[in-house]
Amino acid sequence: VNPIAFAGQPLDRADPVRSDPERLAALRADGALLLRLDGLLPELDEAGGLAFAPVADAAPGAELVFLGLRAGRALFAAVPGEGDPDPAYAHRRTWGAIAQLPADDLALFGAARSVLDWHARHRFCARCGRPTAPAKGGWQRDCAKETGGCGAQHFPRVDPVAIMLVECEGRVLLGRQSRFPPNSFSALAGFVEPGETIEEAVAREVLEEAGVRVRDVQYIGSQPWPFPSQLMIGCLGFADSLELAIDKTEIEDARWFTREDVAEAMAKGSDSASFVPPPPQAIANHLLQWWLER
Amino acid sequence: VNPIAFAGQPLDRADPVRSDPERLAALRADGALLLRLDGLLPELDEAGGLAFAPVADAAPGAELVFLGLRAGRALFAAVPGEGDPDPAYAHRRTWGAIAQLPADDLALFGAARSVLDWHARHRFCARCGRPTAPAKGGWQRDCAKETGGCGAQHFPRVDPVAIMLVECEGRVLLGRQSRFPPNSFSALAGFVEPGETIEEAVAREVLEEAGVRVRDVQYIGSQPWPFPSQLMIGCLGFADSLELAIDKTEIEDARWFTREDVAEAMAKGSDSASFVPPPPQAIANHLLQWWLER
Repeated sequence: VNPIAFAGQPLDRADPVRSDPERLAALRADGALLLRLDGLLPELDEAGGLAFAPVADAAPGAELVFLGLRAGRALFAAVPGEGDPDPAYAHRRTWGAIAQLPADDLALFGAARSVLDWHARHRFCARCGRPTAPAKGGWQRDCAKETGGCGAQHFPRVDPVAIMLVECEGRVLLGRQSRFPPNSFSALAGFVEPGETIEEAVAREVLEEAGVRVRDVQYIGSQPWPFPSQLMIGCLGFADSLELAIDKTEIEDARWFTREDVAEAMAKGSDSASFVPPPPQAIANHLLQWWLER
Repeated sequence: VNPIAFAGQPLDRADPVRSDPERLAALRADGALLLRLDGLLPELDEAGGLAFAPVADAAPGAELVFLGLRAGRALFAAVPGEGDPDPAYAHRRTWGAIAQLPADDLALFGAARSVLDWHARHRFCARCGRPTAPAKGGWQRDCAKETGGCGAQHFPRVDPVAIMLVECEGRVLLGRQSRFPPNSFSALAGFVEPGETIEEAVAREVLEEAGVRVRDVQYIGSQPWPFPSQLMIGCLGFADSLELAIDKTEIEDARWFTREDVAEAMAKGSDSASFVPPPPQAIANHLLQWWLER
């Protein structure tokens, strides 16, 4: 099985350093490196890994995020300038740029991308509307009272998403959205809302989208997903009926697939599969692999 | 075992209604109720449950959140006016007001509190600084282009927090912060950061706070925590050494407790216990109960 894409962060995030401006400055002056990006896409070195430059190469006045330490050396990334840094993140160019990255680099890039994107879309204080500035090595933005702000502190978002397989009579429920490639099916998913457990979110989403009542929800595994910053929480639940009532405003279709359907779809290069599975970078792919092997 | 506090949402959140202004208006005109609040504290009825008023009692111009349907009737809550709606949420008055609520009411209140607090602290667009307005029944805020905004849509935050027991040689690791009551110890915890799995967040937090390396992290259960809007993700991990290196900037103390220590502390009314356990409303209490019973 592949490692879970974007997991396996290779850096020491060195949390105490974030709050220590002197140590941060010293690390920055001591051979620190800057992640090279084109907007929010990675630039690659000759070996196909992430490219770095001396941190002094950052644009003057750029907001810098301290990503962490690797072999004692500090790594930074710069927040893209004004405007939408990556309007086309769903575009295939993103996947083209990152699909070949080694697992470590993918994890490093994912964390950086989430934090940079958050900065780029949170330059103002949601509480009072005034401009904010990075703090704590780029892991916070402050609406500082000294500059006329309200004193609020803001932190990068991580949005938990429940993503689930549902099993009934040996079959598994998968769905598709209209934006998916032809015949692609994947696990149903939805944001965990305020006031819900993970298990309640799973049950609500499956009932909303497919009209299926789910019981006995269990956790399988999680994945950070940097488009822009989800925490994918993979679960399995069970249903007592194959009957579906699909909400077409949420999903285009949902179907029950047999173990043989899934095995054939997951087999590489299969021409006769009944559906196209989610890509290996998606936790849904891991969930299906896990389901087949259990 | 008590039910997990704030879980067990009794409402049908009726997601399709949120996007249907006509249906929302019809429901509002048909006996809808307003959750009665004092700031973000609940008002109680004579039976000690949540108090409601006709929705027409809402202050003129108040922003309303559609909480969901109960027995076909729509429930709403109003966003508190300008200013900090609840500066003292950590104050004992909060616990006094909610400690006696029935489980259903506690869940209903928790969801409402999280969303209302989010509105009150997110009146402006983080992307462009202009005022925003509620949309989708109060489950979104829009920075509308028609009123000069940037078009951004904003959604209520849910911040995932990893909270964990760590076991080694039959003992469990607990810590305390200086703000805890005397001799109180609880599970270590920390926000899941961008670019991390739940399991990675557990390992990072325990290493940061207590200097302990954790392996074999497993998920136990989750809880919505409405102060202001965390998703508590309870886990168990294992360590191979009892050695501690406590980061005093993060926690005041951390200690290993035996099964007997925990059993005695969890026994109600114990005078000779070696520590005071977390309150029954906290998932940490459930984690300890689960650990004792396993």
